[in-house]
Amino acid sequence: MTKETYASSGVQIDKAELFVERLKSNARRQAHAGMWKSAGGYAAVQPLTADLGVAVTTDGVGTKVLVADELKKFDTVGIDLVAMVANDLICVGATPNMFLDYFAVGRLDDSLADDIISGIIEGCDRADMYLAGGETAELPGLYQDGHYDLAGFAVGSVKKADLLSGDEIKAGQKLIAVASSGIHSNGLSLARKVLPKEKWQMLLEPTAIYVKAALSAFAEMPGAIKGLAHITGGGWRNLLRLNEKVGFNLEKPLPLPEVFTLIQNHVEEEEMYKTFNMGMGLGIIAEEKDSAQIIDCFKSFGHNAALVGSVTSEAGLVRIAQKSFVLKNKHS
Amino acid sequence: MTKETYASSGVQIDKAELFVERLKSNARRQAHAGMWKSAGGYAAVQPLTADLGVAVTTDGVGTKVLVADELKKFDTVGIDLVAMVANDLICVGATPNMFLDYFAVGRLDDSLADDIISGIIEGCDRADMYLAGGETAELPGLYQDGHYDLAGFAVGSVKKADLLSGDEIKAGQKLIAVASSGIHSNGLSLARKVLPKEKWQMLLEPTAIYVKAALSAFAEMPGAIKGLAHITGGGWRNLLRLNEKVGFNLEKPLPLPEVFTLIQNHVEEEEMYKTFNMGMGLGIIAEEKDSAQIIDCFKSFGHNAALVGSVTSEAGLVRIAQKSFVLKNKHS
Repeated sequence: MTKETYASSGVQIDKAELFVERLKSNARRQAHAGMWKSAGGYAAVQPLTADLGVAVTTDGVGTKVLVADELKKFDTVGIDLVAMVANDLICVGATPNMFLDYFAVGRLDDSLADDIISGIIEGCDRADMYLAGGETAELPGLYQDGHYDLAGFAVGSVKKADLLSGDEIKAGQKLIAVASSGIHSNGLSLARKVLPKEKWQMLLEPTAIYVKAALSAFAEMPGAIKGLAHITGGGWRNLLRLNEKVGFNLEKPLPLPEVFTLIQNHVEEEEMYKTFNMGMGLGIIAEEKDSAQIIDCFKSFGHNAALVGSVTSEAGLVRIAQKSFVLKNKHS
Repeated sequence: MTKETYASSGVQIDKAELFVERLKSNARRQAHAGMWKSAGGYAAVQPLTADLGVAVTTDGVGTKVLVADELKKFDTVGIDLVAMVANDLICVGATPNMFLDYFAVGRLDDSLADDIISGIIEGCDRADMYLAGGETAELPGLYQDGHYDLAGFAVGSVKKADLLSGDEIKAGQKLIAVASSGIHSNGLSLARKVLPKEKWQMLLEPTAIYVKAALSAFAEMPGAIKGLAHITGGGWRNLLRLNEKVGFNLEKPLPLPEVFTLIQNHVEEEEMYKTFNMGMGLGIIAEEKDSAQIIDCFKSFGHNAALVGSVTSEAGLVRIAQKSFVLKNKHS
């Protein structure tokens, strides 16, 4: 039986990565002085005053819109759209403040538009963000009737002292996994290819939004969270973006949601961990002594969470208990 | 001869406006306290400190991407993308700081991507903005091979005292028009419908970016500019968005660029002024005594500018010399 890969689903992941690299180098060339974080991480951060910065990021929901099309259920992808950028902002330590959407469609249909926007409003409520604007573009000729795309932009603020740089992450600290709500908004092209349509309902489960829990943990235990990794398109390799000098050992991962068990019948296991969140929507790095309180905080907001592993000195490597493969940094 | 309208080009402008209104009312319902400007104007502004706010806006370039496709020239629409949002930010008095793009494509092609990004970089240089990130989404199945869409997002900062609210605009003040570079990025669906393809080259002329000239005028003559109107999809009706209590009288408009003369062979003149910039990319409101210096400032940055009319007490009406029609507010 031939196993599928992300590339065989039509997504040229390496080309996309190369392109992102090129964009980052261009952006750096013309960089304004003094960015606290430049483009390329979870969010760019620019100082606005000596101790207060503005954090920004953008993302889409990929081909999750095609799943919504197939199931004729359009009121949840807006939640995913907000989730993708709001969860990125907390990873630099920022408080998400404003969200803006770009909604482009071949022909505006009131009921489609209502559903999309009601999802966005719901997402903004869950992330405690203000819907600060949006562009609704009707583009006949570019999009066919019934086709549409969505992009989301988020703006947050962060005190310089609260910025999560990753520099405080060290071997011996612990990794807490916060449960995902399912596939979230990455790897949908591959999932759509291998799962029969009668199973697509589970692909539409909205992405969990971790904002309120994270902000509560930041406030309750200042400095306790050393790093936050939103697990998106690179799967568990995303942990390696936090600090290039360390690695991770996942001794006791969270239980695997059913959606991944089904996909795994068609996809190599290593590819699974390089593409999907595999049950961990957010990874948190903290000292062991603070772990229980952080876990309790996330649980109090309805997110399952557990201590699943530790930070190691094996730079650029993610080891997973009982697996024969080791995940490496995308660009190493 | 039947004349074309924006609606006959496939764009349901009223539906789009209604939808934007609905979105604004939703956004207001969940509004955070204390926005200096809420969603729906040129940019939303949220205070970050007692006297410093963050301004945000988003836009796309509409079907200008289809003109680029037809002419196989992709290195200028990125300039338009930056222009659309950067010019909006100056209209609230903000200094544009960061730009982010969303670039979605069916299949990533290196040369297309290089060209798009080089246009975005050029636009960021012209607007003196930092390219703070971007999402490059490869979405097979959603976009066909060779098809793509672009959205832009801009973040600026503004001191509370410098915010352009429109409240200082009064009858008797003057209207300065700053020349557009052509059709800019609005009304392209209609223009594409009526202009033969051998004339499309002129549709691709990049949108003028007024940032450096406006920031220089703000700095040189604090408080002299009472209002700034970026002329986009609503044509000269956009002037009426500045202050609902006044009207405008354009006694001596700037010369009409050739592209509009050609389009006007197929479109009613009133529709032209309701859809296109008609040679005025930016409208500036100022006292007569400050007008000459503001005009000189814009000219020193290479933008033609002239005193073209005045603010009147005819609320919600735009009169244009020698025209039999009067433009009214979209929603009145």
